[in-house]
Amino acid sequence: MTPYIDDLLVRARAAARPMARSAESERNRALASVADAIESDVDAIVAANARDLESARAENMAASLLDRLALDAFRVGAVARAVREIAALPDALGETRDLGARPNGLRISRRRIPLGVIAVVYEARPNVTVEAASLAIKSGNVVVLRGGREARTTNAALADCVSRGLERAGLPRDAAQLVRELGREHVEALLGAAGRVDLAIPRGGDSLMRMVDEHARVPVVRHGQGITHAYVDATAKRAMAEEIVYNAKVQRPGVCNALETLLIHRDRVEDGTLAAAAARLVRGGVQLRADDRARAVLERDGIVCVPASAADWDTEFLGLVLAVRVVDGLDDALDHIAAHGSHHTATIVTEDPNNAERFLREVDASCVLWNASTRFNDGGELGLGAEMGISTSKMHAYGPMGLRELTAEKFVVHGAGQTRE
Amino acid sequence: MTPYIDDLLVRARAAARPMARSAESERNRALASVADAIESDVDAIVAANARDLESARAENMAASLLDRLALDAFRVGAVARAVREIAALPDALGETRDLGARPNGLRISRRRIPLGVIAVVYEARPNVTVEAASLAIKSGNVVVLRGGREARTTNAALADCVSRGLERAGLPRDAAQLVRELGREHVEALLGAAGRVDLAIPRGGDSLMRMVDEHARVPVVRHGQGITHAYVDATAKRAMAEEIVYNAKVQRPGVCNALETLLIHRDRVEDGTLAAAAARLVRGGVQLRADDRARAVLERDGIVCVPASAADWDTEFLGLVLAVRVVDGLDDALDHIAAHGSHHTATIVTEDPNNAERFLREVDASCVLWNASTRFNDGGELGLGAEMGISTSKMHAYGPMGLRELTAEKFVVHGAGQTRE
Repeated sequence: MTPYIDDLLVRARAAARPMARSAESERNRALASVADAIESDVDAIVAANARDLESARAENMAASLLDRLALDAFRVGAVARAVREIAALPDALGETRDLGARPNGLRISRRRIPLGVIAVVYEARPNVTVEAASLAIKSGNVVVLRGGREARTTNAALADCVSRGLERAGLPRDAAQLVRELGREHVEALLGAAGRVDLAIPRGGDSLMRMVDEHARVPVVRHGQGITHAYVDATAKRAMAEEIVYNAKVQRPGVCNALETLLIHRDRVEDGTLAAAAARLVRGGVQLRADDRARAVLERDGIVCVPASAADWDTEFLGLVLAVRVVDGLDDALDHIAAHGSHHTATIVTEDPNNAERFLREVDASCVLWNASTRFNDGGELGLGAEMGISTSKMHAYGPMGLRELTAEKFVVHGAGQTRE
Repeated sequence: MTPYIDDLLVRARAAARPMARSAESERNRALASVADAIESDVDAIVAANARDLESARAENMAASLLDRLALDAFRVGAVARAVREIAALPDALGETRDLGARPNGLRISRRRIPLGVIAVVYEARPNVTVEAASLAIKSGNVVVLRGGREARTTNAALADCVSRGLERAGLPRDAAQLVRELGREHVEALLGAAGRVDLAIPRGGDSLMRMVDEHARVPVVRHGQGITHAYVDATAKRAMAEEIVYNAKVQRPGVCNALETLLIHRDRVEDGTLAAAAARLVRGGVQLRADDRARAVLERDGIVCVPASAADWDTEFLGLVLAVRVVDGLDDALDHIAAHGSHHTATIVTEDPNNAERFLREVDASCVLWNASTRFNDGGELGLGAEMGISTSKMHAYGPMGLRELTAEKFVVHGAGQTRE
C-alpha cells in the first residue's frame, strides 16, 4: 500500500455510505450537473487535450491511438450527452424482489445495493473517465479512476467537472476520484487493497492483464480479449453469410467483438460461398490465413491467402487479418470454439433451427448469436443503455456490464420475533 | 501447478461440456443414484468414518470437532436424504429471460448456464463432500473437492458413491473428483489455476483464508467470518428483544450467524431491559464483555461481566461470549456496525417502522433482519433449499449461495442477418 492510495481509499470509503444512502433524484441531479460542467468547460477540456496530443505526438504515438485520445468540441458534446443518457436510465437500486413468506412467517426479500468502492484501470480514451464515473454515480457506488498517462491532462479536466457536479448536488466529491500519481506502484497498491476495493475493472491490453494476474488481491471482473468465431453452416443463406462475416471483420476491426476466425462447413467450400466471401474480404483489405482445405480452393480461384499457423487459432488480431478453417459440420465447429474461443462472442449463420439451438446452447461465450454480426456484443446494442466493459469471466457478470452489474442483492428479512429452534 | 492437480483439472475440463449439455432428467437420475449408493454403502461409510475417528482421537482432537467429524447410520441416512432434496429442487439451468426486441429486430435474451469447474476447499464435516457434489451436479457444474485430512477415509468412501451415481446415469464420473493427495502444494495449485478453475469456494478458518489471500489467482467467493450484530432500539418489545438476543447467541454459538455483539439503546439500560437480557444470558453460560456504560448498570444489579477491550468489537467469538455496548440511538448503532461488522448479518429489534426501514436500508450486510434472530441467515431458512456457503463479498453472491449462485447468464441473440452500421 502506498500512502497516496491509502489516503485516497480512506476518502473513498467515507463517501461510500452517503452514496449508498442517496436518493435517485440526488444522483440524477449530480449527473445533470456533471454534463452542465462539461458543456461549460468545453474550451478548457479541448485545450487540455491539445497538451496531451502534443506530448503524444512528441513521443510518436501511432495515428490510431492519437485518434482515440483526441477530443474536439463535437466529441466533448457527445461525452456530455452520454452522461445525460445515463442519468435517464432506470434506477438500478430501486428494485426489491419479494421471495415470499417462510412457514415460520418470516418474509424474505432481496434488495439491490451498490457494490461500494470500484476501481477502474483503463488506457487511452479519456471519455472512459466520464462514462465510468457516471455509471458509478448512477448506481450509488464510489469510483477510483486510473486512466492512462497519455490522457492525464484531459482526464484531470474531465474529473474536475465530475467533482463539481457531485458537489452541486450535495453528494461527496470523493465519490469519484482520479488517481493523479501515475506510478505503477500506485496501480499495484489499488489492485492489492483487499477489503478496501470491492471490485476492480481492468480495461486494457496484455501488460495490464499480467499486472492484474500478479498483483490483484481484490475481486476483479476482467475485460479479456475477444477470440471470436463465426460458423457458416451447410444451410446458411449465401448473401447473409457474406454480409455477416464482412461486417464482423471489417466494420471496426480494432475492437474486441470484431471477428477473428471464420469456420465454414465443407459443403460451402464446394458451392463457391467461401470463394465469394473471401474475395470480398480481400477487396476490403483483409489478409486471410487459411487452413489447407480452404487454401486449396482459394488458390485455385486466384484469391490471395497465406497458410494459417497453429498460433493463428488463438490470436486476437485486432486488425484486418482473419483466420479461416473448413470444418466437417457443427460438432467440428463446436470443438474448435471450445478449444480456441476466449468466452467472448460466437455467431452461427444457418437456416437450420436445430443446429442454431445446439450452437446457442453449447457454445460457452458471453454472447452467442444466430444470423447476426459478432459486433452486436455491446452494452448499447444489447439494450443495457451503457456499459462498463465486457466481462469474459462468468463470475458476477458475463458479457457487457451495465448498471445492474454494478450492484449486489442483500437479503432482507421481516419478522415478528421469530427465533430458531 | 503440480502434475497431480494438472491431471485432475484436465479431466475436470473434459467433463464440463457433457455436464453443461446434460438434461435435467440425467442430472436428477445421477443424484438419485448417488443417494441409493450412499444408502447401500452405509456400513462401509460408517466403518471408514470409524478409522478417521480413531486417528483423530489418537491426535487428541477436541470433542466438538470429533462430533463434527462423526457419522453414524442415522447421519449417513440424513446425508442421502439431503441429496434427494437437492434433486427435487427446481432446475437452475431451465431459465431463459426474454429482454425483448431491439429497434433493428434483434431479439435479446439471457440464458442460465453452469459456471464450469468449481473447486471447494473445506474442513472437518464429511457431509460437505456430498452436499457440494450434489449442488454442483444439479447445476450442471463440475466440482473438485478438497476436504480435510481428518476426514480423508470417510470422504473417499462418500466420493466413491458420488462417482458411481454419476456413472449409472451416464454422466462423466470426473464431474466430481476428490483431491486424494492432501499436501498443501496441491491446494495452492488449485487456487492458482487461473483460467482452469472458474470458481473457488473456500470454507474454513483464518489459516485457509490467509492461504487464499496469498495464492488465489482464480475467482473466489469466500465464506468469511460473521461479526454479527443485534441492535435493541428504544421501542423494542422487552420480551421479544430478550428472546431474539438469547436465541442468536446461545442456540448454536459455534456457527457464523451466531450473535457476537449486542448494541442496546441507552433508554433500555435505564428501564431494566439490559439487566433482564443479561441475567438470562449469564444463566445460559455466556460471558459478557461490556462497555463502561453497560457495566455500571450490570454490576450495580450484581450481574457478572468483564470490561470489553477494543479488540472485542472486531472478534468472532464462535462461543459463549458476547460483546455488549450501550448506544445513544440508531445513528450510533449504524456507525458501530459500519466500523466493525463483517458484512455478514445484523438484526434490529424495534417497534418503530422508520428506524427499521433505515436499518434495513443502511446496514451493509448480506442479510439484514427486523425482529428476528441472526440465526436465520442460512440457505435453508431463507428458502434457497440448500447452500454452498455464505458469501460475505458482494461480487457474484452476497449471503447464502444456492443453486442459482452456481450459474451465470449468457446473452443469446436471434437475428435475421443484421449487421452493424
